[in-house]
Amino acid sequence: MRSIIESVPNFSEGRREEVIEAIVGAVRATPGVRVLDVKPDRDHNRTVLTLAGDEASLPAATMALFEAAIERIDLRQHRGEHPRMGAVDVVPFIPVRGVTMKDCVALAKQVGSQIASRFSVPVYLYEEAAATETRRNLSDIRKGEFEGFPEKIANPDWTPDFGPTAVHPSAGVVAVGARAFLIAYNVNLATSDLSIADRIAKAIRHSSGGFRYAKAMGVALQKRGIVQVSINMTDYRKTPLHRVFETVRSEAERYGVNVVGSEIIGLVPQDALLAAAEHSLRIEGFSPKLVFENRLAEED
Amino acid sequence: MRSIIESVPNFSEGRREEVIEAIVGAVRATPGVRVLDVKPDRDHNRTVLTLAGDEASLPAATMALFEAAIERIDLRQHRGEHPRMGAVDVVPFIPVRGVTMKDCVALAKQVGSQIASRFSVPVYLYEEAAATETRRNLSDIRKGEFEGFPEKIANPDWTPDFGPTAVHPSAGVVAVGARAFLIAYNVNLATSDLSIADRIAKAIRHSSGGFRYAKAMGVALQKRGIVQVSINMTDYRKTPLHRVFETVRSEAERYGVNVVGSEIIGLVPQDALLAAAEHSLRIEGFSPKLVFENRLAEED
Repeated sequence: MRSIIESVPNFSEGRREEVIEAIVGAVRATPGVRVLDVKPDRDHNRTVLTLAGDEASLPAATMALFEAAIERIDLRQHRGEHPRMGAVDVVPFIPVRGVTMKDCVALAKQVGSQIASRFSVPVYLYEEAAATETRRNLSDIRKGEFEGFPEKIANPDWTPDFGPTAVHPSAGVVAVGARAFLIAYNVNLATSDLSIADRIAKAIRHSSGGFRYAKAMGVALQKRGIVQVSINMTDYRKTPLHRVFETVRSEAERYGVNVVGSEIIGLVPQDALLAAAEHSLRIEGFSPKLVFENRLAEED
Repeated sequence: MRSIIESVPNFSEGRREEVIEAIVGAVRATPGVRVLDVKPDRDHNRTVLTLAGDEASLPAATMALFEAAIERIDLRQHRGEHPRMGAVDVVPFIPVRGVTMKDCVALAKQVGSQIASRFSVPVYLYEEAAATETRRNLSDIRKGEFEGFPEKIANPDWTPDFGPTAVHPSAGVVAVGARAFLIAYNVNLATSDLSIADRIAKAIRHSSGGFRYAKAMGVALQKRGIVQVSINMTDYRKTPLHRVFETVRSEAERYGVNVVGSEIIGLVPQDALLAAAEHSLRIEGFSPKLVFENRLAEED
């Protein structure tokens, strides 16, 4: 089975179309990498790329991204709501298939070291790749933003993991990391009472006693006249979709409310849905290798 | 998305290893075709191949199979329990992905015509490719076997769809067809009472009033001390796994019996499990394109 790694780099340009096109074009030209999605945001003045590749192709794609971005983005001129610290702001690597988190951590370190030596941009390793707990959270690294970094970087607590202890004049600093696949998953409830969605969100999210890898909030869907438990599943292998779904369903029942349906926003790894099928059909000795298409990919 | 067609040809040799290897080797050498499984059976003196390919590669693989089999198998010398009629006995084409049943019917006709003109072997089209209802069932075509075919083929009801109205002296005749993917699916029950599995099998199988595309029987699993409803799902798109599972579960409940688990024997198309996940999670607007790996395959 070929290995598949997702990467979701953000770069700090969401307005000038020719700049976005040039940067995306440079990434797209890298052999072995696919650009699955490009999401520019004018307000944030930032673009989010979704890439798929492997350990061989993603380092080259990241270098191409940096080269094109540094040439065209000067953070001294940049304005936007996005709390940015770099021309390329963040580069996460995410295991999808045939590759472990450990592999992605190693990849983040390798790419981080390459960025630092080639572009003299200070690199912070975050999430699973973080060297210390204090650098695990992206928001802690980001604090101060581009403008505050010359002072922050001089603090010994914030010496970069790779590269100079000096902010790149136009390109700032970058966070490179490894994390689990993020699934945006919503469950819709047959009620217009937002407080029910809020209470269920509170029941399932980690911060208030729920599942370790679930973040959740209640949302009103005005047009449909119903409410939704809007969920970020931050590690579906440890907190599976079907367990969260069943808990939402049973909590809703307690209020006499039915589940209308659920939604997957964006993409979902095959494994996450196979696990739901395995669970509901109670399949014994299940393996993804039972799937015809996977057997084919394996023979590649 | 690249199209995927499965083919499961049977040829009439299950004992002489060097013959089996030579025939399988000829198929394996065809570019674009993968041999996913080889199952020789000594008692039946037959081998079942599982191939994956597409409309471009499978005709060549079938020709290679015929060439190698005709050279090495003489049915006048063949003995075995397998009710065989040809050196290559049956060649079904099965849509898996990005291809319709209609495409597979067209492929069966094209390949059938090629076999007849190149090898002078009479060809009968069966199942979805059958020209008349009387030729839909493979067992009706097979009746009489190799030894009875010289008489059967002279009957105007049994004029071949392609090729001469004369049995090939050593290679007999062949059935070429198109059919849906067959899933072998078993549901295990927490009881040793075989009559319960028998009654549930009767409830779900088509022949006695159950689901249109399910065949089923009760089986005792001696070692585990439990019983099983053993099911052949002959068209999982029209009779889905999860509906059959839920019916078995509710019928078992009526006898106070729990479902221990279920088993997939062999391979299952991804779609069949995604449908189960979609059902149990009640996913709105589901599409296989939501799956990361499928999005990648699409970009190929």
